[in-house]
Amino acid sequence: MRYHKISDETIKRLPIYLRQLLLLYQRGCTNVSSDGFSNLVHIAGSQIRKDFSYFGYFGVRGRGYDVKRLIKEIKKILKLESCRNVALVGAGRVGSALLGYPGFKRYGFKISCVLDADKRKIGKKIGDIIVKNATKIDVLEKRKIKLAIVATPSDVAQDVIDKLVKAGVNGILNFTPCTLTAPKKVKIINIDIANDLATLPYYLPSP
Amino acid sequence: MRYHKISDETIKRLPIYLRQLLLLYQRGCTNVSSDGFSNLVHIAGSQIRKDFSYFGYFGVRGRGYDVKRLIKEIKKILKLESCRNVALVGAGRVGSALLGYPGFKRYGFKISCVLDADKRKIGKKIGDIIVKNATKIDVLEKRKIKLAIVATPSDVAQDVIDKLVKAGVNGILNFTPCTLTAPKKVKIINIDIANDLATLPYYLPSP
Repeated sequence: MRYHKISDETIKRLPIYLRQLLLLYQRGCTNVSSDGFSNLVHIAGSQIRKDFSYFGYFGVRGRGYDVKRLIKEIKKILKLESCRNVALVGAGRVGSALLGYPGFKRYGFKISCVLDADKRKIGKKIGDIIVKNATKIDVLEKRKIKLAIVATPSDVAQDVIDKLVKAGVNGILNFTPCTLTAPKKVKIINIDIANDLATLPYYLPSP
Repeated sequence: MRYHKISDETIKRLPIYLRQLLLLYQRGCTNVSSDGFSNLVHIAGSQIRKDFSYFGYFGVRGRGYDVKRLIKEIKKILKLESCRNVALVGAGRVGSALLGYPGFKRYGFKISCVLDADKRKIGKKIGDIIVKNATKIDVLEKRKIKLAIVATPSDVAQDVIDKLVKAGVNGILNFTPCTLTAPKKVKIINIDIANDLATLPYYLPSP
């Protein structure tokens, strides 16, 4: 089966489904009703059915969705079947928090390389990883690390991205508040927590 | 002018525009061409024009968009005209990183109350804020704090949300990997960095 051209919006929802399915599986749940699942993830049943139809899975009438099978299918689509090493550039406050973030394990991600330009940090251990000099970004190519998290100061972010791309990195999670440029083959996901917070007041009732 | 019923997708894009406009303004740029702005934010010009048309602003032919006016309009829509106090529940690794996160200032947000259930943290100072006992959530009502960030362990997250709602909080940024329930009048935005990272491998070229 081919999984091409699944829309970005569906791809964004698949980890939400997967997270819930893994939780159900942990709790010993083997099948989940369509309505029950819809309530758990807070997404309309019609949307879920549409998303699942991309990989030809509709569940079985009267039995609902097969939890284990769905986990397998979604992991296959998202290419999460094997563990993946991730590089972190920038070991400041945000970077350090990410290093201790337990959620990455859920999908088999491991931050296995940390780089920083600050001489006071280079050579120091954070958790069980020694911070490397950011000038050594090309080490990622040798280690075949294809994913990176960028949590550097804004003014060096584009330069870091350029070097990551040169070292063969294809997927970047950008925590700097910059809109960065990369070749089309490189996927950048921008995370700006302030921007998320900035949407909340709109929904507040008028005083 | 009424700003009701702007789609969630447009509301999500407005901070991206605002961030870029504030940057342009800082650099002394008073007008920006439609194409130039589109390139800066990596969003199609047609989409930008559609988003701006919600508040009846189309720019002036030959002069582009008025930066200052757009900043004012977007701040008005997002209700970001005045500073807002935000509560943080959970002063662990993620919570502490958020406390030092410089991006919130951009939109006038200030984390002015920090709560935690851990006795070793209560009474301690993080930055310039003393951590309060999480049992004192009702203090938010007196202080008229309407926004909160939840960065607690997963198993207490729903309980915390219930108490926040009871204390009059209407907007919540949820950093726990849980799908939480609240009355309709309360807007919850879920941030799961692992879920964002989980979408990246899909876009990697096949080896």
